[in-house]
Amino acid sequence: MTYTKRTFFRSILLFFAVCYSVSAQKDYKLWLQYNKITNDDLKAEYLSNIQEIVSLGNSETIKIARAELELGLNEMLGNKLENESITTGDNTIIIGSKASLDSEIQKEIGNFDQINEEGFMIKSIFVKDKKHILITGKKDIGVLYGVYTFLRLIQTNKSIKNLNIVDAPKTNIRILNHWDNLDRTVERGYAGFSLWNWQKLPDFIDQRYIDYARANASIGINGTVLTNVNANALILTPQYLEKVQALANVFRPYGIKVYLTARFSAPIEIGGLKTADPKDAEVIKWWKNKAAEIYKQIPDFGGFLVKANSEGQPGPQNYGRDHVDGANMLADAVAPFGGIIMWRAFVYSEHDANDRAKQAYAEFVPYDGKFRENVIVQVKNGAIDFQPREPFHPMFGAMQKTPLMMEFQITQEYLGFSTHLVYLPKLFQEVLESDTYQKGKGTTIAKVIDGTLSHTKLSGIAGVSNIGNDLNWTGHPFAQANWYGFGRLAWNPYLDSETIADEWLRCTFSNDENFIKPVKGMMIQSREAVVNYMTPLGLHHIMDTGHHYGPGPWVSNLSRPEWNPVYYHKADKNGIGFDRSKTGTNATAQYAPEIEKLFSTLETCPEKDLLWFHHVSWDYKLKNGQTLWNGLALKYQEGVNQVKEMQNIWDKTEKYIDSDRFKEVQMLLKIQYQEAKWWRDACLLYFQQYSGKELPVGVEKPKQSLDYFKSLKFPFAPGNG
Amino acid sequence: MTYTKRTFFRSILLFFAVCYSVSAQKDYKLWLQYNKITNDDLKAEYLSNIQEIVSLGNSETIKIARAELELGLNEMLGNKLENESITTGDNTIIIGSKASLDSEIQKEIGNFDQINEEGFMIKSIFVKDKKHILITGKKDIGVLYGVYTFLRLIQTNKSIKNLNIVDAPKTNIRILNHWDNLDRTVERGYAGFSLWNWQKLPDFIDQRYIDYARANASIGINGTVLTNVNANALILTPQYLEKVQALANVFRPYGIKVYLTARFSAPIEIGGLKTADPKDAEVIKWWKNKAAEIYKQIPDFGGFLVKANSEGQPGPQNYGRDHVDGANMLADAVAPFGGIIMWRAFVYSEHDANDRAKQAYAEFVPYDGKFRENVIVQVKNGAIDFQPREPFHPMFGAMQKTPLMMEFQITQEYLGFSTHLVYLPKLFQEVLESDTYQKGKGTTIAKVIDGTLSHTKLSGIAGVSNIGNDLNWTGHPFAQANWYGFGRLAWNPYLDSETIADEWLRCTFSNDENFIKPVKGMMIQSREAVVNYMTPLGLHHIMDTGHHYGPGPWVSNLSRPEWNPVYYHKADKNGIGFDRSKTGTNATAQYAPEIEKLFSTLETCPEKDLLWFHHVSWDYKLKNGQTLWNGLALKYQEGVNQVKEMQNIWDKTEKYIDSDRFKEVQMLLKIQYQEAKWWRDACLLYFQQYSGKELPVGVEKPKQSLDYFKSLKFPFAPGNG
Repeated sequence: MTYTKRTFFRSILLFFAVCYSVSAQKDYKLWLQYNKITNDDLKAEYLSNIQEIVSLGNSETIKIARAELELGLNEMLGNKLENESITTGDNTIIIGSKASLDSEIQKEIGNFDQINEEGFMIKSIFVKDKKHILITGKKDIGVLYGVYTFLRLIQTNKSIKNLNIVDAPKTNIRILNHWDNLDRTVERGYAGFSLWNWQKLPDFIDQRYIDYARANASIGINGTVLTNVNANALILTPQYLEKVQALANVFRPYGIKVYLTARFSAPIEIGGLKTADPKDAEVIKWWKNKAAEIYKQIPDFGGFLVKANSEGQPGPQNYGRDHVDGANMLADAVAPFGGIIMWRAFVYSEHDANDRAKQAYAEFVPYDGKFRENVIVQVKNGAIDFQPREPFHPMFGAMQKTPLMMEFQITQEYLGFSTHLVYLPKLFQEVLESDTYQKGKGTTIAKVIDGTLSHTKLSGIAGVSNIGNDLNWTGHPFAQANWYGFGRLAWNPYLDSETIADEWLRCTFSNDENFIKPVKGMMIQSREAVVNYMTPLGLHHIMDTGHHYGPGPWVSNLSRPEWNPVYYHKADKNGIGFDRSKTGTNATAQYAPEIEKLFSTLETCPEKDLLWFHHVSWDYKLKNGQTLWNGLALKYQEGVNQVKEMQNIWDKTEKYIDSDRFKEVQMLLKIQYQEAKWWRDACLLYFQQYSGKELPVGVEKPKQSLDYFKSLKFPFAPGNG
Repeated sequence: MTYTKRTFFRSILLFFAVCYSVSAQKDYKLWLQYNKITNDDLKAEYLSNIQEIVSLGNSETIKIARAELELGLNEMLGNKLENESITTGDNTIIIGSKASLDSEIQKEIGNFDQINEEGFMIKSIFVKDKKHILITGKKDIGVLYGVYTFLRLIQTNKSIKNLNIVDAPKTNIRILNHWDNLDRTVERGYAGFSLWNWQKLPDFIDQRYIDYARANASIGINGTVLTNVNANALILTPQYLEKVQALANVFRPYGIKVYLTARFSAPIEIGGLKTADPKDAEVIKWWKNKAAEIYKQIPDFGGFLVKANSEGQPGPQNYGRDHVDGANMLADAVAPFGGIIMWRAFVYSEHDANDRAKQAYAEFVPYDGKFRENVIVQVKNGAIDFQPREPFHPMFGAMQKTPLMMEFQITQEYLGFSTHLVYLPKLFQEVLESDTYQKGKGTTIAKVIDGTLSHTKLSGIAGVSNIGNDLNWTGHPFAQANWYGFGRLAWNPYLDSETIADEWLRCTFSNDENFIKPVKGMMIQSREAVVNYMTPLGLHHIMDTGHHYGPGPWVSNLSRPEWNPVYYHKADKNGIGFDRSKTGTNATAQYAPEIEKLFSTLETCPEKDLLWFHHVSWDYKLKNGQTLWNGLALKYQEGVNQVKEMQNIWDKTEKYIDSDRFKEVQMLLKIQYQEAKWWRDACLLYFQQYSGKELPVGVEKPKQSLDYFKSLKFPFAPGNG
């Protein structure tokens, strides 16, 4: 018999960190971990500059700002502070809106015209020879945003000695789109089920609603659409509106407005009318009354998001009307209350033989200038549907008199669900930086959607949420970075995705450079990796049917032609790719001349978009001298190699972070690696039937047959709404 | 301008406790909070008795036992220990199974025959004049159970000076039935969605699986049926079996076996056979092969739970065979591997005009003695379906040669979902203590199902799980007590529910007597309260359709007669209640003569079961002198009053517990109070149509009309499978 002896005291220290579900609790906190400051010099600096908190005003928002500041500082600096409780009267943090500041302080702070209604200033000031830090804004919500920004300085170990930060959001609608159904399933949701527990609302307020609001406010998100764009009219009934009101009450002090999706046929389904024709007087009246009913309960209700005449959803075209008729009718209903209509441009029809990529532009651009002032048209980043890479949507360069808002997808419908680590701000940045040439060189999409260009009243960015009721909110710990990064870019579309990754990592995990540097590199690389192992060189929409999980380039049997992968890759003996140049569908003509020329000419077309715009021979020589076939195969292999490299990087991080999140990500990267190989092998085996060529040196041989890959079925894959 | 000044230090102490989601984190820990011991004398006693831990053996189970012991002690006693690290060589906690103990210690511990394979002993022993605490069992799992029991002593502030605890489970199958579907919806689930993330399995092991296993092991649960009794055959395909295997691997060291539901028609649906006839040679072979395939991956697979020929599920009767044919065929398939079949007795048919309460007995009792040795028949506690109160199921008194296991419902299908606080161990205890008179007075159901009576090889208790992916596992913080209490009663069906409530409260919230006493009272009262405000005096099955939420005594339009509430209450001008005496369906004849007489005689029938067994005139005089109508109305009112009293009790607990759980329960009790009034008003207004009488003094007047209550609809109520 061997006695495994250890003293109790030694063993408890070893075990405590790993045994209980530390991860679940850390994951839940998102980027608001407020980890202890471990650098003594920094801690001393922070402590010497923070002796007191003074909050001005009594609004809920100010109370929240103060509580958050206290929580964050206590967590990050707490232990030390308790022993140094001598108040000297200086080094106070003063938080309060402009109206609450006395003249002496107002003099110090400078011109409030530098910021808009949601902006803030964080300044080191001297009042009567005492040094203080002032966090202020025109409104209380600016103060709250300033507090989160100040906390982030400490979270990311920045100096707070001499502060002079002036910041304000560049867009006015920074909004999450929840594709959440009333039964709590989430269309394209991979992080569990809907946060909204309709059964227990309005009387039970889940703490999660509050923490959701905190997280969003901390990154400047100011709106949330609670319901799926494939809408259910019941959400507009009194029974549900009182539940919506309860959520709105929770979110309000965090600066977050609630919006709903409006099912166009609601007047029939819940109103008892015979039609939903937007020109029908009864219909017009029904929506006006419905708007009045909603605003009576939720005075700051944001408005409606509408998916109409798209993928089977009802809309004005059912009555021989058009999008303008529909949008404006709803806009008139909410206008008296300050509401807006976000009308989606994601439309395509199986009755339209035209290239699906051209249809939204063709349908919407003629309406430019015809929408009401409180209508904004919501356009997906690309012309198909949230693929790993798409060239920017041509509508962004084409509607000068209509405010357009960006629709990004944060949830990873086509990007490996919540099992793949893909850092999406890199994708978002690529889109926002794209130059439309709408008003000459430099007319980037960021300038289109933030209103700089057209000075429209409305501007905004929407993100299709990746949030569910998983303990860690987003399924994959790194998918939290996509929520975070979306918020940061919605606030400022000119931010660099690498800066955002840096911030997020420091707030979420650690400030240790030995951790930050490689892991940031891994995040930045991850987006190109997923393009490579799924859809390199401009391939798109070759995923499997329905659930959109895994490869399905062979799928050709769906009822609508433009749902079939073969419609998009058009692989044949001659080559592969969708000819959208003049010799093809001429979709390139939807871009400004400079861009059209670039894309439509085979030689100038960026290789990353090659097969999006051209049908290219298997023997075509790529810039690196490889044939297209070999280059394609090598790209697939490169994607797999990149994931392997991500695994190598992650495996070395164990000592910097908690073991539970370490293991979680390790398990997920293993799945991602397996699935990257699955994509590579399935796609190459399939395309090889057409190219008739061997795999080049450097590409691993598939271990399974094409038939095997075709046989895979995922009957209960999540998110398949 | 007013400055709201507080020093930073004071304010942080005030705020920290309330701001972040403390509740989410506390709730997640269930009864394994391991709160700090605040009583100094006790702490000193514990510290003086615990100087070291020695673990013997290297199995995963022993490692887990040691880690849990270290975690628990560190959390409860931790801070002090670090300053007293002088090891004296005595006061060691020794954990290890019999085989690992040296002879000297074996001598001290005494006879291992006192316990069975899962039992344990916790003893203060002296070895070479040194005092130690020994936690041992025949097997490692006994040691783990002993460790949890030892920790509970400290959690509940018991002395550990002179320990001599010998305990072993009285049943051998202590199992949760998860009615979880493969799409993660949970039939009758009110705590979110299924824990089993099939999409990410087998490669992603959610920390929750581990914490689920810990929680179950801590109360002695040793089996889990992962899938819904309304089964999907896909769970038996290789794609899913590897996921099941991954879960089995997680659960194994915690002593938990995995079971699956077997869809009887699986040979057709996934086997490609033309029949599922249990006498067909191909079918028999298919199941044998399937069992072999499963056991190859999961050598300790528990077996199958089967719902056959019940509510539309396939079964042997589809082929002219009977339950014995079906159960024995499956039993033969798993017998070579030590597997068992749990065959449910919950059957009734719309083609059978007989009283639904009589059908299971009528169908199963003739089969007594005909089942294989590895078949156990699983019987719901009552003859209808998990009502707030049912007389015990007559089958428990009638099958002497067949092992019967109890099926309790922990999820609150008919008891207010997860919004009502109902402490179910009180219900379970009432059932277990019921005397069947099978072998004379004292033949309680506990003795039937623990095998005492018939010495059958198998014995067990199943509980239909109330666990989901809500942060707090069970939706209602107090629903955790039902999971806990189920496990404790499965281990020992003779425990008192009040003792269990005491334990649970101490482990989950606080040892403060000022908290314990009133809250325990509230829990104990809660079960009678729900009976009173939903179904007093033996009423049953009068809930609304489908979702089973809220009252629906008026429902009479369902296709199957026995699905309609009017079938059960039979209210008319003459009275109310279901005559199951000799003058009625004679269901009472299914009980032993002593019980039959008791129930079938109006005068002796317990009033709590009155309308279950008798159709009683509105003017019938109850024992308290009230007429039936008045008594019924007063019972409804009493239920409402009891919930009001629960609110009063809870409102006074704020200072004893964390504010988040306090608020959660407060919100839920408010809902429960509203809904208790809803039940009272809807039922009394409805029944009043028949009684034609005024409400007695003391009963509040309904604020809404019967038509209003009838009009309520709950289109997306959860759990409606």
